[in-house]
Amino acid sequence: METAKINIEKIIRDIQKTIDGYISKPNPKTLYDPARYLFTGGGKRLRAVMTLLAYALHKPDYRKALPAAAAVEILHNFSLVHDDIMDNDDLRRGRPTLHKRWDVNVAILSGDLLAAIAYKSLSACDTPKLQEIVEIFSEGFIELCEGQALDKEFESQKKISLKAYLDMIRKKTAALFRVSMHLGVALSGARAAFVRMASDYGRHFGTAFQIQDDLLDVTGDEKTFGKDIGSDLIEKKKTYVTILADQHPDGRRLLEKFHPDNPKNVHLEALKTFNEFLTASRIRHQIESVVDRHLRDAMQCLAAFPDSPARRQLVELTIRMWKRQY
Amino acid sequence: METAKINIEKIIRDIQKTIDGYISKPNPKTLYDPARYLFTGGGKRLRAVMTLLAYALHKPDYRKALPAAAAVEILHNFSLVHDDIMDNDDLRRGRPTLHKRWDVNVAILSGDLLAAIAYKSLSACDTPKLQEIVEIFSEGFIELCEGQALDKEFESQKKISLKAYLDMIRKKTAALFRVSMHLGVALSGARAAFVRMASDYGRHFGTAFQIQDDLLDVTGDEKTFGKDIGSDLIEKKKTYVTILADQHPDGRRLLEKFHPDNPKNVHLEALKTFNEFLTASRIRHQIESVVDRHLRDAMQCLAAFPDSPARRQLVELTIRMWKRQY
Repeated sequence: METAKINIEKIIRDIQKTIDGYISKPNPKTLYDPARYLFTGGGKRLRAVMTLLAYALHKPDYRKALPAAAAVEILHNFSLVHDDIMDNDDLRRGRPTLHKRWDVNVAILSGDLLAAIAYKSLSACDTPKLQEIVEIFSEGFIELCEGQALDKEFESQKKISLKAYLDMIRKKTAALFRVSMHLGVALSGARAAFVRMASDYGRHFGTAFQIQDDLLDVTGDEKTFGKDIGSDLIEKKKTYVTILADQHPDGRRLLEKFHPDNPKNVHLEALKTFNEFLTASRIRHQIESVVDRHLRDAMQCLAAFPDSPARRQLVELTIRMWKRQY
Repeated sequence: METAKINIEKIIRDIQKTIDGYISKPNPKTLYDPARYLFTGGGKRLRAVMTLLAYALHKPDYRKALPAAAAVEILHNFSLVHDDIMDNDDLRRGRPTLHKRWDVNVAILSGDLLAAIAYKSLSACDTPKLQEIVEIFSEGFIELCEGQALDKEFESQKKISLKAYLDMIRKKTAALFRVSMHLGVALSGARAAFVRMASDYGRHFGTAFQIQDDLLDVTGDEKTFGKDIGSDLIEKKKTYVTILADQHPDGRRLLEKFHPDNPKNVHLEALKTFNEFLTASRIRHQIESVVDRHLRDAMQCLAAFPDSPARRQLVELTIRMWKRQY
C-alpha cells in the first residue's frame, strides 16, 4: 500500500469504462441516447472516486470496488436528471438538461433507467457482504428522495430553520457521499469502526459540499460552475445563503428582486448587489466558517486510518475543497 | 405441501403489511402521503401473489418470500406512477392518478421513492442467492424501462409490426411477471430447470395479460376496469388491437375518429362503432385466440411442477384470466 501515488485520471477512466458498459446499447434510442449524453458531459465523478479510494484505504486493488463505485455515480446522475426536471433547471455542466434537450417524459424514463442500472452494477459486486451493500445503498437512495421532497416542500414555506435545512441536506447531498465511503470500506473487509469513520467523513464532506454549492449559486461564475447562476434565488429555494440573508432586513429586501418573470439583466444587477451585501453583512464569512468546520471534521475522520496513498489522496481531495470554484 | 388450500386473502394481507412497513413514515408528507394513497387504492397484488405461490411450489412457508414479493409489487406500482405521467392518464384503479391528485413533481419523486423501497425490501431477503435475486430484479427493471421507451417511441411511428409490438410488451409487461416467478422459485432453492419453467410461465402469463389489457381498453367497462376506456385509441397508442385494426381500411378510418381534442360523447359513440367493427372483422376473435394460446402455454409450464396447493392456486389464477374483465 505504500507504493506509488494513485492515478486519479486512471481511476476516472476505469469508472467511465464501467459505466459505459451499461449504456452502450443503441436501442431504444430515446432511452440510451440521453443516458450517454449525460455521461459524456463531464462531471467530476467525485462519489465514485471516493468509493474507490475508500476501498484502497485497506486493499490495494481498487478495481474490485468498481461496480459499487459506478453504482454510486450512476445513482447520483439519476438524481440530477430528476431533480433538474423538478427544479426546472435548464443547464447542467454547461449543457442543456435532459428534459430541455429532449422532453420531460424522456428525462423521467432515462432517469429511471439509471436507477435500474445502478443496481445492476451493484449486483456485480463480488462480496460476501452484498446484503449490507444493497441495504445501505437503498437507504441512501431513500434519503435522497426524502431530501429532495423536503427541499421542494421548503420552497412553499415562509421560514425554514437552519436546523431543518441541515437535516434536509444531510439527506439530499451528504447521504450519497456517506454511502460512497461506506461501500468502499465495507467491500474492503475493514472492521465496522473504520466503516463508521469513513461514513462520517462522507457526511462532513457532503455537508461542506452542499453549503459551498449554495454559496457558488450566488458567487460562482456560470462558465466554471456550469449551472445557471442565481437560480436558487430566482426559484425561491431555501439555501444556507438565503436562510441567513432572510434574517436580515437588507437581505430580505434584496431577495425580493429575484423572480422567474424578471429578465436576465435585472437578475445580473441584483446578483451583484446581493453579493456585496453578503460580504458587508459578513454572512459570506459566516458560511465559509461553517464549510471550514465540516472540512476540518472530515480531515479528522481520515486521521483514524493508517497512512496510505489512498488516504493521502482523500486528504488532497478534501484540501482542494477549501478553494472549490465549481 | 399436500395440506390445506392456500388462503389468497391472507397472502394479500401479508403482502400489504410488508409494504405498509416501508411507507408508514409521516414525513416528508409530499413523499409518503402519495405512496400510501397508491397502496390504499386497491390493486390485485397479482405479481406479489405469484412470487409467494412460486416459492410455495417447493417450500411450504411462503412468508420467507414476502420481502421479494413486496419488492416486485412496489416496483410494479413505481412503474404505474411514472407511466401514468408519461401517458397523461387521469385515472388508475378508478381514482385520480398521482400527478393529477398532486402534481408531476410529486409523482416523479414518490415514484422514485418506490423504486428505492423496492430494493430495500429486496435486501431483506434471507438467502444465499441475493446476487442472483438483485441481478434478475434489476434486469427486469431495465426491461421495464426499455419496454416503456419503445411504447412511447411507437406513438410517433406510423407502422409498427406485430413482432416489434410483441418485443415491446415482453419487456414492458411480461418481464415483471417473469421476474416475480423467477424470484419465488429461486428463493425456494429449487433447481435451475424449475426456475426456467416458472419464468416461462410468467412470460406467457404476462403476454396474455397485456394483450387482454389492450382489448379491455376498448371493450371494457370503465367502472370495472378502473381506467379511462378508449385512452389507447385517443392517445394513438400502438396496441395489439390498433395494429390489427390499422391493417383494415374500415378499422383505419374508425381509428381516425379518436383524438385528444374530441369531446367524451364523440369518443363513446366512436367506441361503440369500433367495437362492432372488431367483432364483424373477427379481429376480436383473432386477439382472443392469441391470448388463449399464451394462457395454454402458461398452463403447460405449470404441468412441470409436482402437484401442490400452490400449483393448484396458480392453475386457478391462470384459468381465471380467461374470463378477465378488469
